[in-house]
Amino acid sequence: MLNIGVIGYGYWGPNLVRNFVESPHTQVLAVADTQAGRRSLVEARYPHIQTVNDARDLIANPKIDAVVVATPVASHFDLAMAALRAGKHVLVEKPLASSTDQGNRLIDEAERRKLVLMVDHTFVYTSAVRKIRDLVEKGELGQPYYYDAIRINLGLFQHDVNVLWDLAVHDLSILQYVVNADPVALSAIGASHFGSKSENIAYLTLFFPDNLLAHIHVNWFAPVKVRRTMIGGSRRMLIYDDVEGSEKVKVYDKGVHMSDTESVHQLRINYRAGDMWAPQIDNTEALKVEVEEFVNSIQASRRPLTDGEAGLKVLRMLEAATQSMAERGRVVEFACGVAL
Amino acid sequence: MLNIGVIGYGYWGPNLVRNFVESPHTQVLAVADTQAGRRSLVEARYPHIQTVNDARDLIANPKIDAVVVATPVASHFDLAMAALRAGKHVLVEKPLASSTDQGNRLIDEAERRKLVLMVDHTFVYTSAVRKIRDLVEKGELGQPYYYDAIRINLGLFQHDVNVLWDLAVHDLSILQYVVNADPVALSAIGASHFGSKSENIAYLTLFFPDNLLAHIHVNWFAPVKVRRTMIGGSRRMLIYDDVEGSEKVKVYDKGVHMSDTESVHQLRINYRAGDMWAPQIDNTEALKVEVEEFVNSIQASRRPLTDGEAGLKVLRMLEAATQSMAERGRVVEFACGVAL
Amino acid sequence: MLNIGVIGYGYWGPNLVRNFVESPHTQVLAVADTQAGRRSLVEARYPHIQTVNDARDLIANPKIDAVVVATPVASHFDLAMAALRAGKHVLVEKPLASSTDQGNRLIDEAERRKLVLMVDHTFVYTSAVRKIRDLVEKGELGQPYYYDAIRINLGLFQHDVNVLWDLAVHDLSILQYVVNADPVALSAIGASHFGSKSENIAYLTLFFPDNLLAHIHVNWFAPVKVRRTMIGGSRRMLIYDDVEGSEKVKVYDKGVHMSDTESVHQLRINYRAGDMWAPQIDNTEALKVEVEEFVNSIQASRRPLTDGEAGLKVLRMLEAATQSMAERGRVVEFACGVAL
Amino acid sequence: MLNIGVIGYGYWGPNLVRNFVESPHTQVLAVADTQAGRRSLVEARYPHIQTVNDARDLIANPKIDAVVVATPVASHFDLAMAALRAGKHVLVEKPLASSTDQGNRLIDEAERRKLVLMVDHTFVYTSAVRKIRDLVEKGELGQPYYYDAIRINLGLFQHDVNVLWDLAVHDLSILQYVVNADPVALSAIGASHFGSKSENIAYLTLFFPDNLLAHIHVNWFAPVKVRRTMIGGSRRMLIYDDVEGSEKVKVYDKGVHMSDTESVHQLRINYRAGDMWAPQIDNTEALKVEVEEFVNSIQASRRPLTDGEAGLKVLRMLEAATQSMAERGRVVEFACGVAL
Repeated sequence: MLNIGVIGYGYWGPNLVRNFVESPHTQVLAVADTQAGRRSLVEARYPHIQTVNDARDLIANPKIDAVVVATPVASHFDLAMAALRAGKHVLVEKPLASSTDQGNRLIDEAERRKLVLMVDHTFVYTSAVRKIRDLVEKGELGQPYYYDAIRINLGLFQHDVNVLWDLAVHDLSILQYVVNADPVALSAIGASHFGSKSENIAYLTLFFPDNLLAHIHVNWFAPVKVRRTMIGGSRRMLIYDDVEGSEKVKVYDKGVHMSDTESVHQLRINYRAGDMWAPQIDNTEALKVEVEEFVNSIQASRRPLTDGEAGLKVLRMLEAATQSMAERGRVVEFACGVAL
Repeated sequence: MLNIGVIGYGYWGPNLVRNFVESPHTQVLAVADTQAGRRSLVEARYPHIQTVNDARDLIANPKIDAVVVATPVASHFDLAMAALRAGKHVLVEKPLASSTDQGNRLIDEAERRKLVLMVDHTFVYTSAVRKIRDLVEKGELGQPYYYDAIRINLGLFQHDVNVLWDLAVHDLSILQYVVNADPVALSAIGASHFGSKSENIAYLTLFFPDNLLAHIHVNWFAPVKVRRTMIGGSRRMLIYDDVEGSEKVKVYDKGVHMSDTESVHQLRINYRAGDMWAPQIDNTEALKVEVEEFVNSIQASRRPLTDGEAGLKVLRMLEAATQSMAERGRVVEFACGVAL
Repeated sequence: MLNIGVIGYGYWGPNLVRNFVESPHTQVLAVADTQAGRRSLVEARYPHIQTVNDARDLIANPKIDAVVVATPVASHFDLAMAALRAGKHVLVEKPLASSTDQGNRLIDEAERRKLVLMVDHTFVYTSAVRKIRDLVEKGELGQPYYYDAIRINLGLFQHDVNVLWDLAVHDLSILQYVVNADPVALSAIGASHFGSKSENIAYLTLFFPDNLLAHIHVNWFAPVKVRRTMIGGSRRMLIYDDVEGSEKVKVYDKGVHMSDTESVHQLRINYRAGDMWAPQIDNTEALKVEVEEFVNSIQASRRPLTDGEAGLKVLRMLEAATQSMAERGRVVEFACGVAL
Repeated sequence: MLNIGVIGYGYWGPNLVRNFVESPHTQVLAVADTQAGRRSLVEARYPHIQTVNDARDLIANPKIDAVVVATPVASHFDLAMAALRAGKHVLVEKPLASSTDQGNRLIDEAERRKLVLMVDHTFVYTSAVRKIRDLVEKGELGQPYYYDAIRINLGLFQHDVNVLWDLAVHDLSILQYVVNADPVALSAIGASHFGSKSENIAYLTLFFPDNLLAHIHVNWFAPVKVRRTMIGGSRRMLIYDDVEGSEKVKVYDKGVHMSDTESVHQLRINYRAGDMWAPQIDNTEALKVEVEEFVNSIQASRRPLTDGEAGLKVLRMLEAATQSMAERGRVVEFACGVAL
């Protein structure tokens, strides 16, 4: 039985606490939050869990084996680093940290101390995303041509980061998991409104090898909630709609085939139009799977699926994208996954 | 009664012919198409309409007052110029021509000869787009912040142009009509697949004065048909979904208000959430309205709503976007609506 | 080349005329309509087609081989009977006539004269309905358990019949074609509003052998258009949504299996949940297929798929349902497809 | 602070426990469930809550002020009666009991002992249903003409009741709250499949005064989840779609107006077509509102909104409908809300 301490009981913290409470392999000993109202909520729900104001008290607790950090991004690094230094395994809410430099230092610290460092890339643990990765890996779509993601809604503007760090981070973690390749370049464009300095709308384009184009549209200021990703490949196309209840993933057989001859004004492409197929997706809660992965990594002393390195790769893209956005879409080149 | 000749009876020509046939102010004397099968179709449907193989015969017909050009883009300029020189009023399928240079020459020719030159920006004549323009002009949305359009489907790859010239042309004509401002810069990214040299997927970003950002996603190789535009303003937001049957335009009252104080980690924005409203949109066929505008312009010797100048503005954006796309999104600056 | 005369150029007539005009095996010689405005429309569209006010002139025309009746229901019998007596083959808009008695007399007359009598059950000629029939016949759904159809919209109240005769007639023709069995009983409930004597909303239940239950909801006074049929079988379920653009038919693998043991309070049924599959449906216009069937029947001197008998079966159900509706849902028993 | 005991921790129990745990006015002292696995779940989530196997131990606990019954329907009466006799206030999951007789006895017992008896008609406490009731009461829809509800999905077949008692109970409680009138008659048709004796599909029609027709379709064996209610009135129409995320209630201005003259074949009705409007619906959890109502009723010694009488009215309709269903839709007449 692993003893868990959770720092931050805001929007996402309650889901983490609930899943660690319900896992047969973990128990939550303490929750830290600086707001008294949030601590009261914990106390009402779980009178047996200790609540503290100061996260340092939780980190110093010798009974706690692992610390979960679910605070605003700006504090991820300090809290995670303090927990690692206190010998705790650490699970950090996405994104891993505020910069690639911070990410590198957390990875180093965890390696030196043989501790598990995991980033909460939740979508990687959903059945839908796993099914998509499986379809891509098995070549069901053929060669991937484009990846187009939309993640928009009327969002909470109360962020210490721009919309890329808040929303695109999800798509970048999914993209990395599904496509399993490093971008060769990226470009981002965004805008901020309502007097805010942080961009609330952004378009991020990533160039991958083999002519694969990825595009991500994130927006905190949209009238409706959309969570839709399309992947087009040489053989099939796919739509992943996370707002759909029962048919989250649809695979389309229709495609095109080039014929041999071409005329001047006309590209002769023979259309094939076929069936659509929506594979059965089980609805296990992603966090439940993720908690198991965290526990198993600790018990087996191995790296988790979404380890520090996975978090770092996303940080590299976010950092480069933010830079590009400040220069109205200047293309940032990458080599071996690192921005030049 | 105006006598009309229509050149091209392919995808769009039949709709033009039908509307000119049914208008009480026009009659169709002749249809030209180089394919015998298309001419046979005209003959079956309208045995009274003359069909010709060579468009020059139609243009030379002295009984014809006005010529409608509904052929592939590459031939727009030659046919429209020949018709103007023969003293005919001209309606050209979008886009007006293959280049801004061609567009300028058509405008000059029409002006010199006091003939009507009109471009078939069909969407400008839909009730939905007119309602949107009306809402924007009256300030119902407040200051426009963003314009986001998606126009994708499994398309006909048989084009002499890339996907921008085929699909984005619609959005650019709508954007120009609704926003009524010139862009200060644009940037486009695209990709071509299946061995084609023309891009089949493209993302076009336009920067307008006052921090208005416009983004257009067009794609010939998508699994589903999407025709959705969102406009976000300081007061309200709007969705225009052309695939929707009865509620094409929805206006959302929910928005955000900045409050006075700010804390370090939190932009305090007070959310207002309100009603949604779908105004009644009549379903008059756009082409019917457009035919009336063409007739009225000719009779009143005035410029039509979508005149050569409107067509030229769209050409400028298409030309610059194609250039930008060839250079992986290089930003092209505009001054007074002209690319620098 | 068959010479066709069409009586009635109202809502549906134009589609019939267009398809007979475009068929390579037929030509339309004359159209009859009592309204001058409708005749003018025909003249504008097809100056070569003769228009007449009085349908008797059309029926008397010796050049005409076949007559199409697309008038209000009340006149179907008289016009069809007159045409048969004049030796013409006849295609009648649904429903075939105003009563089973009229239907029987038309069938007898056509048989005596060896003429083709066909009823325009359009949906039977759609690719979607044919695919569904195919799936049911091959046992893909297993034993059919229920058939549930909804056909509602804000309709034209201008009818000489109630909503069953106007809308449910479609579902009854589909049901008959797909299920291919006679009902053993039916019951209908409806209501009329706005001072009309005809019901504008109705619920029709049909009992078939083997515990198959069919239910049809029709409504002229609904806020939205719905055209959705569900069929549940022992193996699979199916949804047919005619408003959907590209995925009109969806087949669901999820189902239930009874296990052997039962407890007192719990029926133990093991759930199987599987994939969904949307077969490719081609989008040939149904009327084009129907016109071919009419032509082929005449040329081969055989009965068409939707012959007088098919029309009569639907009339029997409509007549019984109207009777049941007048008695607040009294169950009407059937024997061999005939109401007792 | 009220002390609560909850009997039954199956599908719905966890939601009840969570809301009573989080209410500032209540605390949960004990949960009873006969299954050890369910008790373990309670213990993992809330180590401070006592769990018991036998509900009698919970009812006998003198510290407990109120008992919540969330068990299968067959046990509602015995458990609620025992709790009332032990002097506890009682909240019972819907439906209140297995028969009107049981319902009457519970009401009598609660009245005699001056205890609160409340039935968990959850939907009555949703913002959407309250908004609808408000619109109907204020006459926004005009005179109600029809009420059409669909509540279908691939359901859990593990019930001790038929689909009416499981699903239609929701619609009947909403209908009663919104329409606020007693039916004058009802009729129900259903079918059971898979060897079950309980109907898994049912159509229930209710006749109300003033020609208002209500129809409810419930089905445990449908391929998709649908939760949609339409209400048509003389002035406006309304759609309530509980599966919709942000626009659950839509009000349609389009309607019809009778004109004065009528011709023989044509009912002349002038159509008005207008705007659609989706009022803002807040998303407070219904159970939270319901818990407050339970607490307030107890503290003020008054009847709750969904009191025993409301539960009894629904039982009367369910009992009559089950009877009608057994006789293939025989109409059951009501007088003063009681089946004759």
